[in-house]
This record gives sequence, C-alpha cells and structure tokens, in this order.
Amino acid sequence: MIYVVGIGPGGVDTMTPQAVEAIKSCEAVAGYTKYLELVGKFLEGKTIISSGMTHELERCQSALNAAKLGMNVALISSGDSGVYGMAGLMLEVAQGSGVDVKIIPGITAANSCAAILGAPLMNDYVTVSLSDLLTDWRVIAKRLTAACLGDFVICIYNPASHHRPNHLKNACDILLTLKDPETPSGYVRNAGRNDESYEVMTLRELRECQKIDMLCTVIVGNSQTLILDGKLITPRGYKLE
Amino acid sequence: MIYVVGIGPGGVDTMTPQAVEAIKSCEAVAGYTKYLELVGKFLEGKTIISSGMTHELERCQSALNAAKLGMNVALISSGDSGVYGMAGLMLEVAQGSGVDVKIIPGITAANSCAAILGAPLMNDYVTVSLSDLLTDWRVIAKRLTAACLGDFVICIYNPASHHRPNHLKNACDILLTLKDPETPSGYVRNAGRNDESYEVMTLRELRECQKIDMLCTVIVGNSQTLILDGKLITPRGYKLE
Repeated sequence: MIYVVGIGPGGVDTMTPQAVEAIKSCEAVAGYTKYLELVGKFLEGKTIISSGMTHELERCQSALNAAKLGMNVALISSGDSGVYGMAGLMLEVAQGSGVDVKIIPGITAANSCAAILGAPLMNDYVTVSLSDLLTDWRVIAKRLTAACLGDFVICIYNPASHHRPNHLKNACDILLTLKDPETPSGYVRNAGRNDESYEVMTLRELRECQKIDMLCTVIVGNSQTLILDGKLITPRGYKLE
Repeated sequence: MIYVVGIGPGGVDTMTPQAVEAIKSCEAVAGYTKYLELVGKFLEGKTIISSGMTHELERCQSALNAAKLGMNVALISSGDSGVYGMAGLMLEVAQGSGVDVKIIPGITAANSCAAILGAPLMNDYVTVSLSDLLTDWRVIAKRLTAACLGDFVICIYNPASHHRPNHLKNACDILLTLKDPETPSGYVRNAGRNDESYEVMTLRELRECQKIDMLCTVIVGNSQTLILDGKLITPRGYKLE
C-alpha cells in the first residue's frame, strides 16, 4: 500500500490526524528532504527514501519498489498532495502494478494563505502555477486571461524562482490588461512556518514587489474584493443590514 | 476573540489540531446545527449558538455579541471556512468592533473530493458554486465559459438543491458547448462521512446523472484529464519513460 500524504502548510498543528496515522502506519517514508524535516518526529525507525527536488519520477518509482517488497509506504508532499503535488504521478507510476494507492488530502497553499490574508476566496477562484517547467508559458498566459474574463479570484502558485525571476511581473502585465490596477492583492511567504510573513497591496504594487520568491503564494482579488482593516475580503453578497 | 474554524469534510480525523485547539479554547461555539453535531465531542460545557441554514448574518452577529461580552467564540464551517464559508461575512460584521477575528483553514471540498476521485487537481483548476442565492446565474454562466476557455479543471460546489434541480444540467450544457462530451468527470457525495460515495463518468453522463444533490461536489476534467484504473488523473506533464 502507498499513501500519498498531504502534510499541509507547515507544522504538525496543521496536519490532519488521518495524515499522521497514515505516516505512522508505514514502514517507509518517501519525500523531498525539506518536507521530511517537517514531519521528523514521526520518522523514527522508518526506512527513509529521500531525494532532492525535480526527482519526482525517481521518488515515485522508489516508493513503488518498496511497496512491491511488501512495505507500506507514505509519500509525502507539503500542502495537498493532490494539488501540484505527487498524487497524480504516483497513480500513473503504480498503474497496473497491483499496488494500492490512497490519497490523503491536506490543506493546500490557496487555503492556508487565504486564511492569513483574510477571506479572499469566499467566491469562485482559480489556482494557476507560474512554473513553466511542465506547462508551456502560452498555456499559463491563456489561463490568466481566462481567469480575468471570468472575474475569478486568482491564486498564484510558484510565482517566482531563480530561473524565472520575471514570471510574476509578466503575469501581472497580463492581468493588468483586463483588471483594475487598484485590485486588492497580497502574498504570503512561508505560510504556517516560523518565519511566516505576508503583505496586502494593490495589483499595481504587486507587479513591482521584489520580495516575492518561490516560498510565496500570491492572491489577486476579483472585481468585488475589498481591503478591510488590512485584510482581503471578497464578499459573497450578503446584505449587512 | 473570534475564531472562524474550518472543520474539514467530515469526521474528527480530517480536522487539524489547530482547529481542535481553537474550539477547545473557546467558551462559546456557533454554527449551523448539522456542523455542530460533527464536532459534538468538543462541545461539552460550552455555550452553543446554533442556527439553521441561511441564517448566516444572524449567526455572525450572535458570535460578535458573545465576543463583546468577553467570551472567546469559535464559529465553525464545514470544509474551509474561507471557501464559500463564514470567514468573509464574520470579518465584515466584526469590522470596527475592536474584536479580533482569526481564520483557521480546513480542507475544502475541492481537495477532499479530488483525493477520493484520484488526482484531478494536479494542474490549474477553478472552483465555481452553482448556488444563485447570492450570485446572478449570468455571472455563474460567464465563469463556466471562462473556465472552459482557460482549459481549467472545474470543481463545482453546490451543484443542486431542491430549489434548483436543473442547475447542474444547465451548467453541463454550457460546458458541452466548449468541451469534449467524453471529458472525464466525477462526483463525490458526503465526502469524509460514513455514507461517502462517488462515481467517475464522462461529462455527457454527468449531464444525465440523477444522483447528484446538495451533498455532492462535482469535478469536470480539463483536456488532459484521464481515467486510469477507475480514477481521475490530470497529468502534470512528467514523462514516464
């Protein structure tokens, strides 16, 4: 059996008991080294299958090999393993092997970051990753445009990295062709971890923001989103009086 | 202090320790009666502020009144309180009152249902609610169209109710103008609860499905989504060999 476990944004207090139990029940735990550290207290005595980033296929194959030897294996992702995580690849790799794969969801960055920024996701939203390692930039650009046309709140994963320092600026340029530059926006860095930080700003300011890196998630409001007491809120439409 | 707490999809095993601690720390707990039952084991000795559905504003005002009397109050939502939940309204109602409001995220239906169906949310997705109580149907229709134009995976909340039995069929008709009728799709009913059930099917079959009610969440794939071993998978684009 392989459990693909989403451990949530950071510490143990945002992991579900279901996720903890899945890890505890396994003889082997696989994951990117940094995520294994977050669940270190559950790893004593277990076989560790660790690997660096971008070795996702190798990690899934190692997990499958361990499962074929009769071990129960937990393959962990931060956030939700089913959102830009390992769940899909693990299901693909295990296909036809006879090994069961069960997905254990976690709180994904859209939700953990929204809670820190206020309540920006109270109405329809999209998630878009700006990583073009696996998705052509033209597809990303098309999705950003469609998100504006639908007046969705937009949650941006992987807004920047060393290899693509200008992706967020380029994305903002697309959004600014269709959205008000004063649209309330914000980012969270290291959600749920000790050095968590966040900032609320306008879309115009977001385009110029130099502090956003690969540890950040960005949220851009829809036409209804407000800033109230420093928090982002997208009202659902309740009448207050 | 008011905590707006997302309790996740169902049982205690999908609530985070952070959510449990927030409820335990409060003297009063407010929520829709059915959600209070899900966290019954934490409610002993607490003041209960319960109310039926569609009394959301009243519930927030009651929570604020209790907080003004000096109580710590937990206002609970199923799933994530920040996604079609109570977080935004509570922040609006509390504005200017001097009462602090903290949002505790939970696992929302998009994620809990995706895990049951496989891994459909491995790439960019939207959530759209078909409830037109607070959102005009023309806005919903526009968003469904935009979601197709962006080739997003589409997660549908509130697909039906007694008052709007044809909403899902109408939504599917919009999707079918732009998407392949064979698009892999599925629904989950009562995710995370004892009587959980799910089904994987095509978009064409989804339009005709009579089993989908207000306790269901629906996922419609993008152009890449596959059905593998009975599970929905949207590949991220890793090359398998």
